[in-house]
Amino acid sequence: MTDNRAESNGDRPARAKRLPRAVRERQILDAAVAVFSQRGYHAASMDEISEVAGISKPMIYAYLGAKEELFAACIQREATRLVEAIAGVVDESLPPREQLWRGIQGFFAFVADNRDSWRVLHRQAGTQGEPFAAELTAGRKRAISVIGLLLEHAAQAQGVGSFAEGQTEPLAAGLVGAGESLADWWLDHPEETPKAMSGRLMNLVWMGFGNLVQGTGWRPSQAEDAGLQRSDEVSA
Amino acid sequence: MTDNRAESNGDRPARAKRLPRAVRERQILDAAVAVFSQRGYHAASMDEISEVAGISKPMIYAYLGAKEELFAACIQREATRLVEAIAGVVDESLPPREQLWRGIQGFFAFVADNRDSWRVLHRQAGTQGEPFAAELTAGRKRAISVIGLLLEHAAQAQGVGSFAEGQTEPLAAGLVGAGESLADWWLDHPEETPKAMSGRLMNLVWMGFGNLVQGTGWRPSQAEDAGLQRSDEVSA
Repeated sequence: MTDNRAESNGDRPARAKRLPRAVRERQILDAAVAVFSQRGYHAASMDEISEVAGISKPMIYAYLGAKEELFAACIQREATRLVEAIAGVVDESLPPREQLWRGIQGFFAFVADNRDSWRVLHRQAGTQGEPFAAELTAGRKRAISVIGLLLEHAAQAQGVGSFAEGQTEPLAAGLVGAGESLADWWLDHPEETPKAMSGRLMNLVWMGFGNLVQGTGWRPSQAEDAGLQRSDEVSA
Repeated sequence: MTDNRAESNGDRPARAKRLPRAVRERQILDAAVAVFSQRGYHAASMDEISEVAGISKPMIYAYLGAKEELFAACIQREATRLVEAIAGVVDESLPPREQLWRGIQGFFAFVADNRDSWRVLHRQAGTQGEPFAAELTAGRKRAISVIGLLLEHAAQAQGVGSFAEGQTEPLAAGLVGAGESLADWWLDHPEETPKAMSGRLMNLVWMGFGNLVQGTGWRPSQAEDAGLQRSDEVSA
């Protein structure tokens, strides 16, 4: 998971000689995500971000701009990392059930390994006014259309055509909302494992309550269970 | 759906002689929700709210306070109305499937009849900073625990005990998130009917994708279909 923004700002001055610009920018963004997550946008100070990053304030301003731009850069980077974390574990050649299970595990593994990112994305970005909320909305829309396409392919692979054209997008929107809401609930219940959380979302969206209230729950098959490293085994 | 706030502020001056205070407050809040929904919190002006309500600005300030308090009162009233709209159609003596179908229809009927409320609650309250976001979070938590209890009762009624203690709450959180996300999608697709939206959420959370990708979808039974008025037949 590299930060592509680093390359795209080549016209700004590079004052640090020791480390490549991409590394410095990553350090700044890592520190900024941690400080924004802990303090919230308004209480977060550039002084603290500078201290945590070990990089001077003038250099932060030169590289990534003032607090508002820095916050926007954090949202952009973390949203991209999240989408990449999910896309990286989904393999379209697998059966739909396993694709969904992998994607869901990828999502909760990301949240487990990047609680600060999730807090900034989900709890803070939306509360800081229109420009950030718009950036977030655009990210959600991308995620929904990617997942909608996956569902469409999954149904086509089953040869049933159960989804009329354009009908997967709202279902994908529901799935994304369910995942967000469960991850939000998780912030208040940190004792729960990524696997338990993934199992809940899988039960909800794969089995449905119709099965659950009758005692028919979902359990990963051995193959599915072995298909992905557990989150606590993945290095951050 | 009456506004209970009206009775609780009896210590403020009542300058209008013609109409009872509760009626005036409702007029102010109705106007405020419409103006906030159209303009957004920052662009909304007390002048316009006063004009739409047909009530003088000094009287608005005396009854419900300045813009910030008025916005908070809008969130509080609309969240309460939404929860009441759902609770009002759910009947615990019915089978779980029908309870869920009714609750889901109640939700989308409310959003259909109160687009401004939904826009203020979901798209605006969260974007206007901590105090409003906190109020919204509290409302969501109430909704989640109510729905969690319903699910628990539903499973108990089936005599299967498929949910371990405390396990319905995260599932309810997922369900609430799916509903919110679908209703949000709906704002951008206003041509969809409340019934089509309800059917999608029901398919997602009752049937699950496991059934859907195999072409096994959910359809309301005749009894379920007759159980609730369609949204466009419900008077606002």
